Amino acid sequence: MKLCRVVGFATSSIKAKGLANHKLLVLKDIDDTGNATGEAFLAVDTIGAGLSEVVAVTTGVPACHVLSDPQAPVDAAVIAILDSVSINKKEIHNQLKEA
Amino acid sequence: MKLCRVVGFATSSIKAKGLANHKLLVLKDIDDTGNATGEAFLAVDTIGAGLSEVVAVTTGVPACHVLSDPQAPVDAAVIAILDSVSINKKEIHNQLKEA
Amino acid sequence: MKLCRVVGFATSSIKAKGLANHKLLVLKDIDDTGNATGEAFLAVDTIGAGLSEVVAVTTGVPACHVLSDPQAPVDAAVIAILDSVSINKKEIHNQLKEA
Amino acid sequence: MKLCRVVGFATSSIKAKGLANHKLLVLKDIDDTGNATGEAFLAVDTIGAGLSEVVAVTTGVPACHVLSDPQAPVDAAVIAILDSVSINKKEIHNQLKEA
Amino acid sequence: MKLCRVVGFATSSIKAKGLANHKLLVLKDIDDTGNATGEAFLAVDTIGAGLSEVVAVTTGVPACHVLSDPQAPVDAAVIAILDSVSINKKEIHNQLKEA
Repeated sequence: MKLCRVVGFATSSIKAKGLANHKLLVLKDIDDTGNATGEAFLAVDTIGAGLSEVVAVTTGVPACHVLSDPQAPVDAAVIAILDSVSINKKEIHNQLKEA
Repeated sequence: MKLCRVVGFATSSIKAKGLANHKLLVLKDIDDTGNATGEAFLAVDTIGAGLSEVVAVTTGVPACHVLSDPQAPVDAAVIAILDSVSINKKEIHNQLKEA
Repeated sequence: MKLCRVVGFATSSIKAKGLANHKLLVLKDIDDTGNATGEAFLAVDTIGAGLSEVVAVTTGVPACHVLSDPQAPVDAAVIAILDSVSINKKEIHNQLKEA
Repeated sequence: MKLCRVVGFATSSIKAKGLANHKLLVLKDIDDTGNATGEAFLAVDTIGAGLSEVVAVTTGVPACHVLSDPQAPVDAAVIAILDSVSINKKEIHNQLKEA
Repeated sequence: MKLCRVVGFATSSIKAKGLANHKLLVLKDIDDTGNATGEAFLAVDTIGAGLSEVVAVTTGVPACHVLSDPQAPVDAAVIAILDSVSINKKEIHNQLKEA
């Protein structure tokens, strides 16, 4: 799963049927200090993640496992809001929340 | 899902059966300011996206979920035309449409 | 789908059963001017693509959809020979064929 | 499979149902000398890998094959703790454990 | 499929059940001159590839198609030992074997 930070939101009126009722989050991967980095991408959210939170994102077919309609055309889903993340014994999550 | 801009079109006479009746869009990912970036790739379009629009693209097996023939050899599909996209509280979609 | 140019061929005597009868093309992605770029990779060809042609390549499980044996261990297949490809209103395919 | 080193852990209270009871490891790919490199990511652990160990990580749908619930929204799983890894006839695993 | 060179081996005592009886090869992609390049990764071998041989590697779910147990947690498999590989009309395989 990708280690990501929520950096924004997207809305759409014209979309495939399976996307109705799904909130689209804009996310970026985080680096070792917890900063958002690289290209933004989209994932559906079924657990209520908010702006700037650090989350786990599952990609590919397993992302469909959290949807009420597993045939929705979705390849990325937020599956966890992370309470803590340590990299090389440094806690990066809370440190970043304060930033 | 990838955040992309439609940058062109492709046509083909000699193709696999499952591709008949599918429009092929040429797309690129967008950066934080909404500019197309990186390598172009192809996706099928089932919702009528036009040149320069910002769209969501699903990749892999879930892309087949929007096709009438789920056994078509397709690994990318446009699933939404995006009305708005915010990254770090800056709205990038409309800004880019004017560009 | 990836936008690729056929840059060569590969042959193999010792291979998995499902690969028998499949021609292996060597391909590279193309850049905006149609030049082959990046690392070469392999795909099976079921439509008769020739050296230097610009083609569409499907990856992952959907590549198996064009095979007579969908259980073949194949993760990339040429699914279309492209007649034309436009990127930012410039036609790149024919231009490149003359090169 | 990816060649990775365990660099940390992550915890989550708010998460998709299928994730309950799964330990989340933070991992990085290793370079030829066995140092962790690149962006950190998450995988579930079903075999008891510890901090700084070199492991094999399977990604995508096959990662679900090691789970008691194959419908869990998981796209990466540690599938082996590696006793030895040689690259170009140099043993990198033990050398790195001493580092 | 990836064009790779076998650069080493890995062994494991503690591993997922589905991995028993599978030899783990360490591989790298090759560049246009056939040199191993980039990050090393692991694949199972069912055809007897040896050190320094140029091979084709299938990734993702199709890699499971060559396994006796298709539910093994495997995302990469060597599916062919390549006799010849040409890129831009230069034969790279044998040239590299002499190197």
